Amino acid sequence: MSPLTRARCAALDAQDPLAPLREEFRLPDGVLYLDGNSLGALPRATPDRVAELIEREWGQDLVTSWNKHGWIELPRRIGDKLARLIGAGSGEVVVADSTSVNLFKLLAAALRLAPSRRVILSERDNFPTDLYIAEGLTALLGKGHALRLVESDALAAAIDAETAVVMLTHVNYRTGTMHDMAALTEAAHRAGALMLWDLAHSAGAVPVDLTLAGADFAVGCGYKYLNGGPGAPAFLWVAPQHQERFSQPLSGWLGHAEPFAFEPSYRPAPGIGRFLCGTPPVLSMAALEAGIDVMLAAEPAALREKSIGLTDCFIAAVEQAAEGLGLDLVTPRDAARRGSQVSFRHVAGYPVMQALIQRGVIGDFRAPDILRFGFAPLYTRFVDAWDAAAALVEVLRSRAWDRPEFHRRAAVT
Amino acid sequence: MSPLTRARCAALDAQDPLAPLREEFRLPDGVLYLDGNSLGALPRATPDRVAELIEREWGQDLVTSWNKHGWIELPRRIGDKLARLIGAGSGEVVVADSTSVNLFKLLAAALRLAPSRRVILSERDNFPTDLYIAEGLTALLGKGHALRLVESDALAAAIDAETAVVMLTHVNYRTGTMHDMAALTEAAHRAGALMLWDLAHSAGAVPVDLTLAGADFAVGCGYKYLNGGPGAPAFLWVAPQHQERFSQPLSGWLGHAEPFAFEPSYRPAPGIGRFLCGTPPVLSMAALEAGIDVMLAAEPAALREKSIGLTDCFIAAVEQAAEGLGLDLVTPRDAARRGSQVSFRHVAGYPVMQALIQRGVIGDFRAPDILRFGFAPLYTRFVDAWDAAAALVEVLRSRAWDRPEFHRRAAVT
Repeated sequence: MSPLTRARCAALDAQDPLAPLREEFRLPDGVLYLDGNSLGALPRATPDRVAELIEREWGQDLVTSWNKHGWIELPRRIGDKLARLIGAGSGEVVVADSTSVNLFKLLAAALRLAPSRRVILSERDNFPTDLYIAEGLTALLGKGHALRLVESDALAAAIDAETAVVMLTHVNYRTGTMHDMAALTEAAHRAGALMLWDLAHSAGAVPVDLTLAGADFAVGCGYKYLNGGPGAPAFLWVAPQHQERFSQPLSGWLGHAEPFAFEPSYRPAPGIGRFLCGTPPVLSMAALEAGIDVMLAAEPAALREKSIGLTDCFIAAVEQAAEGLGLDLVTPRDAARRGSQVSFRHVAGYPVMQALIQRGVIGDFRAPDILRFGFAPLYTRFVDAWDAAAALVEVLRSRAWDRPEFHRRAAVT
Repeated sequence: MSPLTRARCAALDAQDPLAPLREEFRLPDGVLYLDGNSLGALPRATPDRVAELIEREWGQDLVTSWNKHGWIELPRRIGDKLARLIGAGSGEVVVADSTSVNLFKLLAAALRLAPSRRVILSERDNFPTDLYIAEGLTALLGKGHALRLVESDALAAAIDAETAVVMLTHVNYRTGTMHDMAALTEAAHRAGALMLWDLAHSAGAVPVDLTLAGADFAVGCGYKYLNGGPGAPAFLWVAPQHQERFSQPLSGWLGHAEPFAFEPSYRPAPGIGRFLCGTPPVLSMAALEAGIDVMLAAEPAALREKSIGLTDCFIAAVEQAAEGLGLDLVTPRDAARRGSQVSFRHVAGYPVMQALIQRGVIGDFRAPDILRFGFAPLYTRFVDAWDAAAALVEVLRSRAWDRPEFHRRAAVT
């Protein structure tokens, strides 16, 4: 195969049906942004939407906006929009709290559904907050529950009669490896366990069909590929057949059947509403809705095709030029097993990424040695993949990373 | 005593040292806003602050803002500012999640500190979400823990050797009655119990000194008197001597000692940081900080003096004109036992409030029969209290409330 060229990348951009959607974002000049898997870019519509919410809805209509502007419906309304991105139905998703808090609700629910089983099974390389929340819950219960961690390739075999719930992140945050959702869900069910998926790196990035996979629970994040803004509220999904089988322990008033009846005892709302807890952060909810609206304008199949194209391009552009520079591809070469990111291992991962950031190529570093590049198909161009690869190769070849200031660790990496 | 007059109220406004602070808020024309205890008004600085955060920090600096603009510090930085309003020290408060979620963390912590005691004691008329969360936690634990509810005047006597923690809201949401924080905390400690205060209707409204009272835990709300915007994040306080005695069960990654080390096991952060869970909603955090900044410009003693003046005025103006109209004052006449609100009972409470809202006098209704009026001392004038009282009397005298449209219940009351 002839080597990839920048001209070929530009030609791919010219044919890209999603190219016009880049105009829906405000991206800074002189920056190649490949960290939309950590914090999505700013949609063009968001500033005005949030300003309208603050100045007109909050400022002018004040408390009456809960009814007048439907604030009270936001968790379900945005949830219904989001459902279309993850193969869920209307009334099955709510937007609320953080991914961590939502995970706590669902793990507690899952353990109630399977009282004779005590194990939460996950993989060692799952995103740490998922593991920490499972630890916190099992320690709180103190009834012999345990979190069991295995390596990724040992998962299916490790699901057994003690497993209450299998908790996995669909696309691994470090490596970009995508699990086979349908196969693992089936394996869990075959062993009598429930299946919970964390879609933090999936929603808006890769095709997800929770209903087709027959999954039981899911959580996910609003501030990555959904472009909901820093710390945007998270979401949770519960399969319809489970929704009314239990109430969850974070039983705050907005999950009550009649929050404004101010009854002294909790009565869970029908359906997915019982998974709400406290009052939602309305400003952050409005920004999330604006982000999801942009995403819904794209054809899912086109998103996936472009995501694979971008990551293929980046891998090819790096590898054809980086021989001997110490990079190891961590993300699967098989596009079917790849999320919308590419990760390379490099012994000097941290300073290399700092040197790239100084040049305006923004990816991120994940301990201990991973250079991570996210390719958000809504606003990333094929030439961006090319130019980022060229910058990476240049930084490595020139050893531009080997300067003291690039070794100093920041609070957030 | 000669009757109160509007001229006398206007004279009080002319002498009010806090009067200039009203200019720090954007209030709609033609509205008397007496619901700042449900949703605080919009500070003038907030729209620009949020716009700057969205357009410059998020839009331009993207993910680097976690370090560059100190987003990662927001929970502690805003917590330190808020501490000054509640008699807490630096490093003792974090802003995070919702009041309900924070209550869950602290109740779980309290039960761990007192393993031989199984009772959470509260009052029947506490704000329901507090009771629902206690129910959810005790049901989850399933080890004989229970929520015990008594009437307000039976509280002190009900604290006994089974009581692990007394959980009370300092100012009652319906009646505006304020508990004696120091006395009840002492009663709890005398019986060997811990004391948790919910400051939802206190922070920014009445003087609070958690340290002087010797309390153990507190939570509170950002969207009422702190003017943080709809669904603003909540806060929690843990007395320094307890902070490192346990970790809480919502052990998400931002409460980890080194979140970006991505370790597979949870290690709680030192101090108050371990009470964080997931990623904070940064847009909503920024709005809350703007609200707290306005509050910090006011002298606390002046706030309290004005709050008592406003509520005294409103009570006097209503009572001198409303004889025989079926209103019963629910809020204590003794100002020392009163929060910054006035509540009247009326058999037609719901439609009466709707008729008032239609006239631009915005208070709210709390089931079953309470008309509630909040007096946020930062932006409410004495003439507002007078005019609201006059409108209430007029609605009752004319029976303007007795129209079908005022009886139709909205989703949020």
